[in-house]
Amino acid sequence: MSILLYDLCSAEEDRRFSPYCWRTKMALRHKGLDFETEAVRFGTMEILAPTGFNRVPVLVDGETAVTESFDIACYLEDNYPDRPPLFAGDVGRGEARFLNNWADLTMGPSMMGLYLMGIFEHVHPDDRVYFRESREARFGRKLEEVSADPDRIRETMYNTLAPLRATLSAQDFVCGDAPAYGDYIVFGAFMTARTISTEKLLDDDDPIHAWRARMMELFGGFAASAKGYEV
Amino acid sequence: MSILLYDLCSAEEDRRFSPYCWRTKMALRHKGLDFETEAVRFGTMEILAPTGFNRVPVLVDGETAVTESFDIACYLEDNYPDRPPLFAGDVGRGEARFLNNWADLTMGPSMMGLYLMGIFEHVHPDDRVYFRESREARFGRKLEEVSADPDRIRETMYNTLAPLRATLSAQDFVCGDAPAYGDYIVFGAFMTARTISTEKLLDDDDPIHAWRARMMELFGGFAASAKGYEV
Repeated sequence: MSILLYDLCSAEEDRRFSPYCWRTKMALRHKGLDFETEAVRFGTMEILAPTGFNRVPVLVDGETAVTESFDIACYLEDNYPDRPPLFAGDVGRGEARFLNNWADLTMGPSMMGLYLMGIFEHVHPDDRVYFRESREARFGRKLEEVSADPDRIRETMYNTLAPLRATLSAQDFVCGDAPAYGDYIVFGAFMTARTISTEKLLDDDDPIHAWRARMMELFGGFAASAKGYEV
Repeated sequence: MSILLYDLCSAEEDRRFSPYCWRTKMALRHKGLDFETEAVRFGTMEILAPTGFNRVPVLVDGETAVTESFDIACYLEDNYPDRPPLFAGDVGRGEARFLNNWADLTMGPSMMGLYLMGIFEHVHPDDRVYFRESREARFGRKLEEVSADPDRIRETMYNTLAPLRATLSAQDFVCGDAPAYGDYIVFGAFMTARTISTEKLLDDDDPIHAWRARMMELFGGFAASAKGYEV
């Protein structure tokens, strides 16, 4: 039985925009593991009930269900040790946890204002009240306020991405000469943006832009072929 | 012949405050390598001339001289592979480069205003003009302006350290269950602060505070025994 991943979708079942689910999908491809996805919307999370969880990603592998993208990556690394490594050891795993926290707490928030309304517009009409209320409670501001002043958001984002840019000026991937889970962590947010927004986040001459292009071509153009916008 | 490290000092030869030199000293202890340091001030960098470099850290190992802390770490890892690993593989090294850039471009700048005047006050009187002019050219502001509004600096620093805090809430070290070079990268700036400033950077209940204490006790209290202030 192949692995099943519950994957967040918009109003369109094939428009998959969760950064956390993207991390997991890239990790599964990296490991060369067959998997299927089942689309789930904010309003249909009750289909997860048999797994014991209530939000995505949830990975089901035989009798085992795992949630939280970082925990899923650890599960895959520990349970499929003969496949290509996601962390390549304890130091790589430890440092990847820092990258995960940087992506969630620093990078994502710095750019989210550029595509937040894109998410709102793409989720199923039945999910819009939930999306607005849950996010506005989290941010303490209206979605429109978070998204106001895109020029200022771009400037903040540019500065926030400085360590990523410097790293990708020195090496092809976050994890060195080849991609590993640290790359998928960071890549997730860029895939969120691409799937639901026409906003251009990166200048063509930004080393991050070239890296994103390399990432999209991995595994036979897996990410490039996903439904999104050409940005 | 043991390894020689040129190590930046203040007006007092034994007050060593360079974050980059601290990274290297911790890496040398991690590798269990004997080394001596030679103190150098901003105004005595000409003593480096035989090495071909003009700023610290410079590590001299037999016929080889290496500068730039990250390059020194790579040199030690590649030339002393039988010693405890600093990166533990290519993924760990790649991710450490990101940490290095984050520490240099994001973390350091967020807290530096709290101890910049401390550096100014501790460098040799002959070095003060150089220190002021070189830093003010870099920042585009006077030292006193960079240091103004410590409450605001503390708030920015607190937010900037969020991914480090979250990581150290989940594991004892940046690199996981045990320290490695990623820890020494981040630790350097805290040692800079401790050696030249009485400013308290971290609340006692901050997981970063507990980690810093663990780091200071490594290698027989190597960092704890360095000349600095009890903060």
